Parts: sequence; C-alpha cells; structure tokens
Amino acid sequence: MPWPSHVAQQEGFLALDHTPHIELAGGDERVHAALDRFMRNLSVRTGVPFDRNFPGTPDGPRLVIRCASSGLRVQKLEEDESYHLAVAQTGIELAAPNPLGIMHGLETLLQLVQAGPRGWVVPYVQIDDVPRFAWRGLMIDVSRHFMPLDALRRNIDGMAAVKLNVLHLHLSDDEGFRVESKLCPKLTQLASDGLFYTQAQMRELIAYARDRGIRVVPEFDVPGHAVSWLVAYPQLASGPAPHGLVRSQRDDLRPPLDPTQEATYKLLDKVFGEMEALFPDAYFHIGGDEVNGKYWDNDANIQAWMHAHNIKDDHALQTYFTQRVQKIVQKHGKQMEGWDEILDGNLPKDSLIQSWRGAQSLADAAKAGYKTVLSAGYYLDLMYPASQHYAVDPMTGPSATLSAEEKSRIIGGEAAQWTEYVTPEILDNRLWPRLGAIAERLWSPESVTDVSSMYSRLAVLSRNLKWLNLQHIEGSRKMLGRIEDDDMPPALLETLATTVEPVKEYNREKTQVYDVEAPLNHLADAIPPESDEARQVNALALRAVHDPSVRQELRTWFTKWRENDAQLEPYLATSMLRQPLVPLSKNLSALGTLGLAALDAIESGQPVTAEKRKEQLAEVDANASYNAEMLIAVVPAVRALVEAEPASR
Amino acid sequence: MPWPSHVAQQEGFLALDHTPHIELAGGDERVHAALDRFMRNLSVRTGVPFDRNFPGTPDGPRLVIRCASSGLRVQKLEEDESYHLAVAQTGIELAAPNPLGIMHGLETLLQLVQAGPRGWVVPYVQIDDVPRFAWRGLMIDVSRHFMPLDALRRNIDGMAAVKLNVLHLHLSDDEGFRVESKLCPKLTQLASDGLFYTQAQMRELIAYARDRGIRVVPEFDVPGHAVSWLVAYPQLASGPAPHGLVRSQRDDLRPPLDPTQEATYKLLDKVFGEMEALFPDAYFHIGGDEVNGKYWDNDANIQAWMHAHNIKDDHALQTYFTQRVQKIVQKHGKQMEGWDEILDGNLPKDSLIQSWRGAQSLADAAKAGYKTVLSAGYYLDLMYPASQHYAVDPMTGPSATLSAEEKSRIIGGEAAQWTEYVTPEILDNRLWPRLGAIAERLWSPESVTDVSSMYSRLAVLSRNLKWLNLQHIEGSRKMLGRIEDDDMPPALLETLATTVEPVKEYNREKTQVYDVEAPLNHLADAIPPESDEARQVNALALRAVHDPSVRQELRTWFTKWRENDAQLEPYLATSMLRQPLVPLSKNLSALGTLGLAALDAIESGQPVTAEKRKEQLAEVDANASYNAEMLIAVVPAVRALVEAEPASR
Repeated sequence: MPWPSHVAQQEGFLALDHTPHIELAGGDERVHAALDRFMRNLSVRTGVPFDRNFPGTPDGPRLVIRCASSGLRVQKLEEDESYHLAVAQTGIELAAPNPLGIMHGLETLLQLVQAGPRGWVVPYVQIDDVPRFAWRGLMIDVSRHFMPLDALRRNIDGMAAVKLNVLHLHLSDDEGFRVESKLCPKLTQLASDGLFYTQAQMRELIAYARDRGIRVVPEFDVPGHAVSWLVAYPQLASGPAPHGLVRSQRDDLRPPLDPTQEATYKLLDKVFGEMEALFPDAYFHIGGDEVNGKYWDNDANIQAWMHAHNIKDDHALQTYFTQRVQKIVQKHGKQMEGWDEILDGNLPKDSLIQSWRGAQSLADAAKAGYKTVLSAGYYLDLMYPASQHYAVDPMTGPSATLSAEEKSRIIGGEAAQWTEYVTPEILDNRLWPRLGAIAERLWSPESVTDVSSMYSRLAVLSRNLKWLNLQHIEGSRKMLGRIEDDDMPPALLETLATTVEPVKEYNREKTQVYDVEAPLNHLADAIPPESDEARQVNALALRAVHDPSVRQELRTWFTKWRENDAQLEPYLATSMLRQPLVPLSKNLSALGTLGLAALDAIESGQPVTAEKRKEQLAEVDANASYNAEMLIAVVPAVRALVEAEPASR
Repeated sequence: MPWPSHVAQQEGFLALDHTPHIELAGGDERVHAALDRFMRNLSVRTGVPFDRNFPGTPDGPRLVIRCASSGLRVQKLEEDESYHLAVAQTGIELAAPNPLGIMHGLETLLQLVQAGPRGWVVPYVQIDDVPRFAWRGLMIDVSRHFMPLDALRRNIDGMAAVKLNVLHLHLSDDEGFRVESKLCPKLTQLASDGLFYTQAQMRELIAYARDRGIRVVPEFDVPGHAVSWLVAYPQLASGPAPHGLVRSQRDDLRPPLDPTQEATYKLLDKVFGEMEALFPDAYFHIGGDEVNGKYWDNDANIQAWMHAHNIKDDHALQTYFTQRVQKIVQKHGKQMEGWDEILDGNLPKDSLIQSWRGAQSLADAAKAGYKTVLSAGYYLDLMYPASQHYAVDPMTGPSATLSAEEKSRIIGGEAAQWTEYVTPEILDNRLWPRLGAIAERLWSPESVTDVSSMYSRLAVLSRNLKWLNLQHIEGSRKMLGRIEDDDMPPALLETLATTVEPVKEYNREKTQVYDVEAPLNHLADAIPPESDEARQVNALALRAVHDPSVRQELRTWFTKWRENDAQLEPYLATSMLRQPLVPLSKNLSALGTLGLAALDAIESGQPVTAEKRKEQLAEVDANASYNAEMLIAVVPAVRALVEAEPASR
C-alpha cells in the first residue's frame, strides 16, 4: 500500500536469509541513506541482524540498484518518482530515473518481505510504478497543540512508508507562532508560549524529510488566524489588539492583521524573507482562510482607507492584501500557496490554491488557470472512516467536466490534521492508519477503488507501522490503561471502547469547547476514529438479514454488549475518567438487547406491526445519542435488523 | 513499590487537579531537575497538561520541598537517601537530608497519584523511608549484545522509579570492547565491531544517571573474558592469540591475558587510567571471573615464569595478577571491585567483592573483612520467576550467623542481566517487571516478604513503567506480531504464548548455542520470563483440589488449551517462526485433555488405581518436555490435579 500502477506477480519466492549482496550505481547520498534505512528496517521487521557485516557470513541474494540521476538539491514537484522493481531467481533489481524512485522502490520491497516456511522471502514480481499525482501531502497543525520533533520525525517515517511527499506545517495561528524568528524575536518570546522549533531544529527536520523524499512546506497564516503575530505587534491589529494568545474557543477576540497599514507589509517582508530562507521548498503557504470581516467593518480607520482607495468590500480588501503578500513571497524567490479563499483571477498564475471548502473551488481554481491541491474530503480531524476519504477523488465531481489542460492543473491532494483536540500522545492515532487510504488515493491509479481490499491492506499497514515506532496502537492502549483501574478486568472497558467512535465533524465543539488547558485524556481521545469491530458487525448484520449462518456470531456480539454494563458499571463511578461513560455503557447494553430481540423476530418469522417496529426504532434512536463526545458505532447493525423484521400486513 | 520503611495512611485525599504551588528550598541542580521530571511524568501519567504555566490558572495544592544539603558532586555509597513525605489537607511536604532523598520521595509521590471520582488525588499519608541497603544495583552486559543509549536511558528511568542506585555496565568481554579508548584506539577500531559508546556519549549517560540518583560503575573484565583486548593486542595472549572476536559459543579459543608479561600491566595501566578518569565513581570493576587455567597450564613461558617466581598454581597466579591490577586501580584513585573469584586475604580491605557463585562467598568475603554485594540469586538471565528472586535475602543463609560487624559489610545486591540471548528489543522484557521485586528486596525492610502483595504491586508497577517508555509489554507484543501472520486470529498464538515460558537456567545453550548472528526472533524471545496466567492457573489448581467452586474456571482454561491446537495447527507450517511450535501446541492440547480428565475423576469420586495414576503422570511428563527453547508453565496445575485424584486402596 499504496497499490502500484503495474504489478505482475510470478510464482515462487526469493530467499532473503542473509544480508543481500548489494550493487549500487548512480544517485546521490540520499540513495545510500535510503539503503541503510532499508537494511535497518528490514532487521527490525524480521528480527534478523541483517545490518551487521559479520566476517564469513554467506551473502544473501543480489540486490542491484541503478539510479539514473542524482536528483535536485531542493526536491521539486516536477521530479520523476517512478521506479521499476523486479524480484526473480537471479535476485532483486531496482531501477529509477531519480533517487525518489529508489526510495519508493525500497519501501515497496520492504512491504514484500514475508516469513515463509523455510525463512524470510520475497515473492517473484515485476513492478512498474509511478504516482498518479505529484503532490501527496499531509498538513499538521502545530500551532494549536505543539508537536515535538520526535512526533514529527516518526510520522515522516510513516509518510515515507506510504509514499507521501509533502509535509505541510501549519506554523502559526491564533494559538502560537511555532518557529524561531531571529529577525523578530518578539514573535518567539511573546507569541510561542515557549513551545517552538529553533531554526537549527527546523533545518534538521527539513533534512530528515528530504532524506525520505518529502518536501516541507511552511504555512504562516495571514491576515486571519494571526493573533500570535498581534500579541507581538499589537499595533498591527484590525481594531482592538488581542489580550493574549488564544487559549480557548471562548476567547473570541481574534482580529486579523490590518491590511491598510504599510507597517504590516514591512513586518511580513521581514519575517517571510527570513522564513523563505529557512525553508528551501519552492512553495510558501500564506494561509488566507477564514478572515473575519467584522473587524474591518468596525474599524473606522480601515473603513476610511478603503473608501479613499476605492476598495468596495472585505473580499476586495483581502484580495488587495493577498496581492501585496504575493509580491513579498515572490520577491524572496518563492511561489505562493494559500487556502481557497485567496482565489482571485488577478493573482499570478504560478500561485497554488489549496481547496478546503469543497471540490467546486478545486475545479474553479483549475479553470481559472491555477495549480491546485484538494484537501476537502481529506480532513482527518473530522473523524470520518477511511472508506469515506478513500472515495474522495480529486478528478471526480466538478473536476470531471474540466478540459484535459485544466485537469492537469489538479496536482494532488493533502490530508489535514487540525489539532484542537490532538495532543502529541493522540496524534498518531488520529493520522494512522486512515492516512494510508488517502496516500493510496493519491498514488495509485484511479481504478484502484476496492474498499474491502483497501481495508485488509490498511490493517497490514497498521501493523507494519508499529516497526517505525508509530504510536497509533500502543498510544491508544496506554490511554485506555489510564482510564482503567489497576484492579479492573481490562475486557470490560475494551468491550465498550471497541464499539464507540468519537463524534464526527465539528460536533465535539458543541459539548466540549476547545481549551488548551482541558485535559484530553478521555475515552473519546483514546479510541481510534474508526472502530474496526463496528465495521465488521455492521456488515455482518446486513448479511444476517438473508444469511442465517452468521446470526450466531451476531448473537455472541449482542450478548456480550448486553452483559457488559452490569459488570462495568460498578467501576464507572470511582474515577472521573470513567463517570461520563455511564450512559454510554447503558445504551450499549440496551442495543444488545434490541439486537437480540430483532434476531429473535427475524428467526421466528412472526410478523411485527408497523407500530411495534416504530417503537423499536425509536428505542434504537434513544440509545444512539451522543455521550461523552462519542457515538455508538454499532447502531447501524441493530437498526438494520429491526428494519428487517418481518412486517405484518 | 518498593514498599517504604514506615507508612501511616490516613483517611482522605488531596485533590491534584492543577499545577501544585511549589516551594523549594535547598539541594542542588539535581533537585530542580527531579522536580521538572516529576511534573513531566505527572502530566504523562494523568494526561493533564500540568507542566505548562497558563496565566490565570488557579494554583493546585502546596508542594513544599526542603532539602538540607546539596549532596556530593560524585554520588557516593555513603550518602543518606532517606526522606520524609507527608500528604495532608494543607498540602504535600517532602523533606530529605540530601537530593537523593528528594528524588526518591518524588518517585513515591508519583506512585501515590490516582484517579478519584472527582479528579486526580493523592491519599493522605505520612511516610518515613530509608533504604535497607546502600548498594542496589543492576548490571547490564553490553558486550555480548550492544545496547544503544536510548535503551540504557529508558532503563535508567525505570531504575530510578524503583529506587535502584547503581548501574553496572559490563563493558568488555570476549565479544567486544564497548567504550571508546583514545589512548589505545586499537581497542575501539579492532575490538568493538563498530558498536561502542564514545567517551562523550558515556559522559552524557553518566550525567543522565547522576541526575536520577544512579551511580555508573564500569567493568572491564580481566584477565579472563578478555578476547577483545587480545584482538587488539594479540601478543598479550596466554598461549595462541584468538582468531578474532568471539561470535558464537562454538568459538572456543578464548585465552586470558598473560599475567607474566610486564606489557600486560603497562597496557592495563594506560587503559584503566583513561577509564578511571572517564568514570567518576569511586569503584572500578575489574571482573576477574571464570579464568580458564588451561591456557596458563599449556603455555611453556608462563609455566617457566611461575616456576621462577615460586607461584604454585593457577589460583596463585590469578591472585598475583589481581594484586598487581589492584595497585593500578588504586594508583588512579579508585577502589577495586571484582567478582568473587578475586577473593583473597591479601587484597586491601577497601576492595569490594561481588558474589555471583553463591551466598557462601558473600559470607566469606564479609568474614574476611571485605565489603560485598550479592548477585547470586539475582541473575535475571536465568528466567526465574519474580518470587524466586524476591525470596533471596543477602542476610539469610550463610550470612545469618555473621557478627554484626561482619554483617555491616554486606552492603547490598545487584541484579545481573547477561545478554547472550538478549537484543535491544528484548532487553526491557527480560528486566521488567521482575527487577521491581529485587529492588524491593534491597530497599524495603527485611519483614516485607508477602509474595502475593508483591505480585499485585508488581503488576501496577509494570503498567506504570509503560509511561517511562519501557518496552517490556509493547516489545513483546510487537515480537508476537512478527510471529503471527496478518490473516491469523491473534488469540490462537496468544493462548499458546501465555502458557509457556523460556527454559530456565542455562538450558537454552543445550539446544540453541549462543551466536551473535542467530536471529533472536522466536517465541521464546518474545514471551516474558514468567507467565502470569500460568501462575494464576497453577494456584487455582491447588485450590481446586479442595474447593469445587473454582473448578469451572479451571475447566474453561483446560478446554481452551485442548481446543487451541486444532485451530492453530494449520497456521504453524507456513512460517519458519511458527514451525517449531508444532509439538508445543500439541502438548498443550494434551495437557488440557489430561487436566479435564483429572477434574472429572476428582468430581466423580471414582477411585483411580496407582497404576492408572502412574500412567497419567507419565503422560503429563511426556507433554512437559522442552520444545523450541520453551517449557509449558502450566504443567504443575495438571500434575497437581492428577495427583489429587481419589486413590483406590
């Protein structure tokens, strides 16, 4: 995963029991580093000390690597990432026009290694692989919750494993400015809360990502989402200056930068100049989203300036601002990227539009002549299942009717992880394994759409990512352990935890406002966004309607849920981390009972009146309410069975 | 854990929902570091962002810390490690004469934090705590398998959590010399295989340990276990020089240093001088164990020299060597430590004897006037259960009859982890949680001996150690995951894995010789040394003999085992990691059947003939054989039930 463009599998396996005999030609230092990494990962995955050259050890199979060029010093969008991988009796051959292809090929090879009856093996195969899109990104918001470097590094490793190639860091927002500025040290001292990356650290991180075929695109969000700038430079606020960094959803004083002051552009020139030198990538992201016009409307000076300059509304004012900022970005040698609010026909055509508001703005941007990247549909913080992201294709919907030339401007997509409710210990569990499904959508041919194949490969990916030290499974386990008592049978909480999911979309905000001080140590934080068990049970219930053979298995599930509350309940009152689970546990129990009754009705064949069914469905709904920022993800199974009860005339 | 010397628990709890209001007086920089660490660990354990000072956050409870002195620059054996901890309505008070006591007190406080119905709390308590022994150590052999710094660091964190205070690094052996020598770079270049700590890394590690109240005692083993020295300096071998570093148990050319050459002492003086400067601790361990006299017996030059110097046998020759080495160690300002083979009345009385051959040598050393430390009984590589280590007390057995003065020379104990079969990914699972039981033996009063209390607290410790990133549980899970197939129900292998243990003592060597190239990725490597489930079932079986109420639970276990093989077996043939498990799985199934039959017999009351019972016991034995370097740990349960069958006259 992601599935390659062309695979031809042959019968047979190549034994890989000793360190391969490696011949390497071409490429640059990244190819050597990738090979070292491959050997290290291979050792970790297999538990075989492949990475040490013991004298007298017999050679393993031949591994011939040919890289036709050395690649660019600063990785570019336009570079060729294809590779050819052949595993045969004679050994392994990997060829690529560019170091990036070699990196991708080695990741594929690592995925092919498996335990055979006589030892570790690689199946005979011929792979010709090339990505569908050149921009395959992940955005992480490091402003709302700062993410330490080790969290970024291990997730870069994970990105490389699924062939993603852009890490977009959302480095400034109302909550903090997260990278050291030497030219404007106030931004670091006053606007970071002490949580920021030094320039040296950032340089190291960029090098780390480059070594893995990943570009780092920085974002400094202006003119909205810019309270951190204004904490350091209050005189540049539109209207009243903020009281301090935003720490809670309740803090509603969030003025944008004042686009009518020259000092604003002077500051931006200084900081962007510094940051454009720090981040070598060709693109520089200036945000531009969600500007709240009320601050401009209410500021007499701004209104007067607009009138004097014949700027008719807030949109026109933002366009003026964006054009000024674009010139600053360009002056320091970069191309500007921004969220789709910046879209305006007067921007230079080398600007890049990131569509977050919907597929329409993606098509609009492409039509207007801009390169564009899709993020709508790839927001991981909305807690959607992997299948939902997997179904989002940048080329369908409004894009489908574009001309070939317009389509060519859609260069990829980017998953987005906003972190209002994500601390470093939660991060991996929000990203993985769902990110693998998005990575496949962006790499693999359009025709690769089999959801059940995707899920089975996602499960393998999820297990393999543990070897990269990703904490999506273990972090979740540890957090569940925190909620349990030492003397509590772990299966009880697990039964509940595996049937629930965090509420979707922006529903959490309604019951638990975002606040940097609020502990994120609840069950809703510990569980993965998508319950594998629920997916399984929901599918089983659909089958059970017509297939009696699976009903016993369903009964086992339903019985387990029905019984669970009585055993779990006594433990819930004793900890504030468990108390909020009381209604959820009761509801699950009730759903178990309802499910069993529905199965009884189906199996007995006794007709159920419309009224009775309506009552039962109402009862299902009553037990499906959100509690403790979670929903019960197995409700569809129970509902499907109730609806399938035989109807009386 | 370890249980304190004096605890007076009171009713009630102190709320700990916000960052404590801290008053700190006295101590040195280590107290500040310990406090920062405490706040960090508290945040990690609770999931509450305690470590950030948000403006406007209400203060939590008062935490008053008073440290009466600043402690020594180089931590010494003789320093006072006691502390007084009081938690009351008015807040928390922690007082100690020395920073070490503050560190220990903060670890105790962290263990007291728990989730209450309304928030995080600490129970009201008065603790006066002082260690029973001043030397509470752990030895790790980093020569046979090199352990990376992060593995050492996280285990130092674990040691601090259970109040251990000596990390003894076995830095050189036949397999490699693991610390950089600048004066004799050949030792690094030729005798380390590229796997060594630089001096800068070692200095950092020592500072890291010091910050956590832990001394680092280096060991360079001479004159035996010294092949690595001889790879660099072959001319100093007794007899023929080795071919290279030892890589396997089969390499049997392992000459000791030649004690008759002056060049030997010149080299030792140079290297020990360098290492004594690098390692600040007062003690310097010179090994001295297991010298193979045959090399001296067979070397004509050595024999001639012995004759000329009137040295009558190998023991006398080693004594001569040890006395020379002691002078070198002393010259550079240190006290010598060695394994108990060095024991000889003529050594200076400030030498320290580490007893590994038995409790007798401990008593002998104390009697002869030497300080001494017990390791016999604390060898973690022998795979004994925690209870067995817990029962070993330095003051019982031959020590019990010593005079008070002699007893005072027994200054503690040291767990030992030899690493023939331990890679970095296995290390934590070998040390933890059993090491907690040894730590308690060495810290807590002699009267603290309740095994069932120990096990229940050990389980809590084991869970808490995960927050320090110790990999004893997760590492084991990952290794089990490697053995499983992606499409294999995980419960099948788990059922087998939780009923088996690695073979004990030195039995593994008999079927799988130690070899640095041999992958340690088998089930025997993945499982913990002690099976919690087996302990539980074995105890249950003893009860079931007289208590019918627990028999149903036993039947559930036995049935699970009986059924498991049929489901697991089809998966075993397809991977070389699972194939060796075929007989083990069959045996477990047979034991399940035997257990059920024995329960039937007990419940039916039908007498069983002596012959029949003998047959059944033979069958138990037949299914108890070692397989794949493992034993089935639930055999005692089945045997106990067979033996309890009603006998016919």
